[in-house]
Amino acid sequence: MIITVTPNAALDITYRVPRLRPHTTHRVSEPVERPGGKGLNVARVLAALGHRTVATGFAGGSTGDVLRERLAELGAGGTATGAGTGTRADTRAGSVEDALVPIAGTTRRTIGIVDDATGDTTMFNEAGPTVTAGEWAAFLTGYRKLLAGASAVALCGSLPPGLPVGSFAELIREARTAGVPVLLDTSGEPLRRGLAARPDLIKPNLDELTQLTGSTQPAQAAEEARRRGARAVAASLGPEGILAVTEDGCWQALPPARLSGNPTGAGDSAVAGLLSGLVEGLDWPGRLARAIALSAATVLAPAAGEFDRAAYEELLGQVRVTAVPRTASRPATTS
Amino acid sequence: MIITVTPNAALDITYRVPRLRPHTTHRVSEPVERPGGKGLNVARVLAALGHRTVATGFAGGSTGDVLRERLAELGAGGTATGAGTGTRADTRAGSVEDALVPIAGTTRRTIGIVDDATGDTTMFNEAGPTVTAGEWAAFLTGYRKLLAGASAVALCGSLPPGLPVGSFAELIREARTAGVPVLLDTSGEPLRRGLAARPDLIKPNLDELTQLTGSTQPAQAAEEARRRGARAVAASLGPEGILAVTEDGCWQALPPARLSGNPTGAGDSAVAGLLSGLVEGLDWPGRLARAIALSAATVLAPAAGEFDRAAYEELLGQVRVTAVPRTASRPATTS
Repeated sequence: MIITVTPNAALDITYRVPRLRPHTTHRVSEPVERPGGKGLNVARVLAALGHRTVATGFAGGSTGDVLRERLAELGAGGTATGAGTGTRADTRAGSVEDALVPIAGTTRRTIGIVDDATGDTTMFNEAGPTVTAGEWAAFLTGYRKLLAGASAVALCGSLPPGLPVGSFAELIREARTAGVPVLLDTSGEPLRRGLAARPDLIKPNLDELTQLTGSTQPAQAAEEARRRGARAVAASLGPEGILAVTEDGCWQALPPARLSGNPTGAGDSAVAGLLSGLVEGLDWPGRLARAIALSAATVLAPAAGEFDRAAYEELLGQVRVTAVPRTASRPATTS
Repeated sequence: MIITVTPNAALDITYRVPRLRPHTTHRVSEPVERPGGKGLNVARVLAALGHRTVATGFAGGSTGDVLRERLAELGAGGTATGAGTGTRADTRAGSVEDALVPIAGTTRRTIGIVDDATGDTTMFNEAGPTVTAGEWAAFLTGYRKLLAGASAVALCGSLPPGLPVGSFAELIREARTAGVPVLLDTSGEPLRRGLAARPDLIKPNLDELTQLTGSTQPAQAAEEARRRGARAVAASLGPEGILAVTEDGCWQALPPARLSGNPTGAGDSAVAGLLSGLVEGLDWPGRLARAIALSAATVLAPAAGEFDRAAYEELLGQVRVTAVPRTASRPATTS
């Protein structure tokens, strides 16, 4: 069983408009509502890959109730409700077990307005609810119980108001104590603090890695992140694929071609690929090929955050994974 | 007791952003959520004026639940929840009794994005839920019971999918049978059909009146609407105030000055002014003065759809109401 943790879960609401015209009134399409937040996206892909997946984090208020309803529907074959034609991708979603902890606050919403004329999306993101110390304690009790039966855990996204910035570090320490491999996908200070607790893997993008280390050079920045505590770093570099820097070696994995589509959720699909590959005992090139193929199949899917299974299976054999030489963690002087 | 009917009620959700930039991601202010749809706006103002007010119509699904919670909170002194500083107007709302009929469908939402840089609002409106024949029958049973104790009824807004276009006409006939004065504030075909059932008053704006009669000249169009069945017509003309054409005479009522502010809900406040004046036995100039003052105080209030009570009381004495000569219902030939 794989655990995904989404401390700042959201209900993602998507509308389509023929054309977005600021300061006018629009009639919108029927809303597509789905469980959102990075960890829930990862959970959905893991379940679709056939892994038993338990999603935890927090949910509260009327929006939390709707989020849990939508999560429960995943197992019933749907990937999103309220969808019109063409918005259900071929994910064949498995069910995700709901271990979200109830809170007094109200789960946040994100509103996405898709402009059909350009394909672009305008996002409006609410702030998360405040999580109390008592709610965090209840979460920790449940998390420890889940760890006893877990093969891996993914800690994903931002921390809602109320949680200490070191919360992910605490969850990493618990996982390490239980002997469960732990992946951390967050940014800023929660990432910085998390590293000190020595996660098995982090999956920053280049911006996050640069913010963390000060280096804009992926290989150097990844080595620096390892020096600060990450056992392995899988840096997602957009069209440049993924650079993995690990104790077993370094690899660059590239998609077969430049892709056009909606990149929403591509990083979360990569996390699901890496984690499922780890649990299944794949070697690094195998894990990276899966991460890249899932990520690309997510960009190609018509609905944001879904993946196109046929594209995934086809792309899996086409990903190029190359071993690259290890970079010194300090830049060589070139003058 | 006054009844307001809102067949297509909505939960109005308002966010503020520093500046709306299409195709980017925005962090939004805490949402302000309030019961929406014309009839619920009218009910809120009637209650604030001290009238016992019962709101009926339909509510369903999780959005319907939130709408009813917000409606219940009106009586507890709040005018909207989730409001940050500066968004609660001085409405001192009274309570509105909830007689909304449960439906299987989900109440619609409207999302308003206020651009703080310009003050303009961009609206995204969901379509209403389908109302079944059984739900309409349940509504009618409750409506007839309410009519037995009512001093007036306002029928407001659009009809949701599923309701016959003649639904307002049916509600007007029921009110007339019960001897209860009825105001109709709708547009298009439901207005056209409603007229044939002879409502006591309609409150179209000039666009609605022109669409109905083909005439762009307010006095002529109002006379034509009376010929088609309306006992009286109060045409709202924006900055030109209200033109009332009745069996007792014709009046033009003007605000004391051009106003700047948010016109959202100004028409609904005018309806509340007209209806409360009727119930209190005010003459037409008195009703029109109240409608104009409430409407202007709504434009001046910081929050959309609220009204500024101090401004209302000050403006009430400043509204100019002038008797105007009756227009022939056919235009004079001028050549």
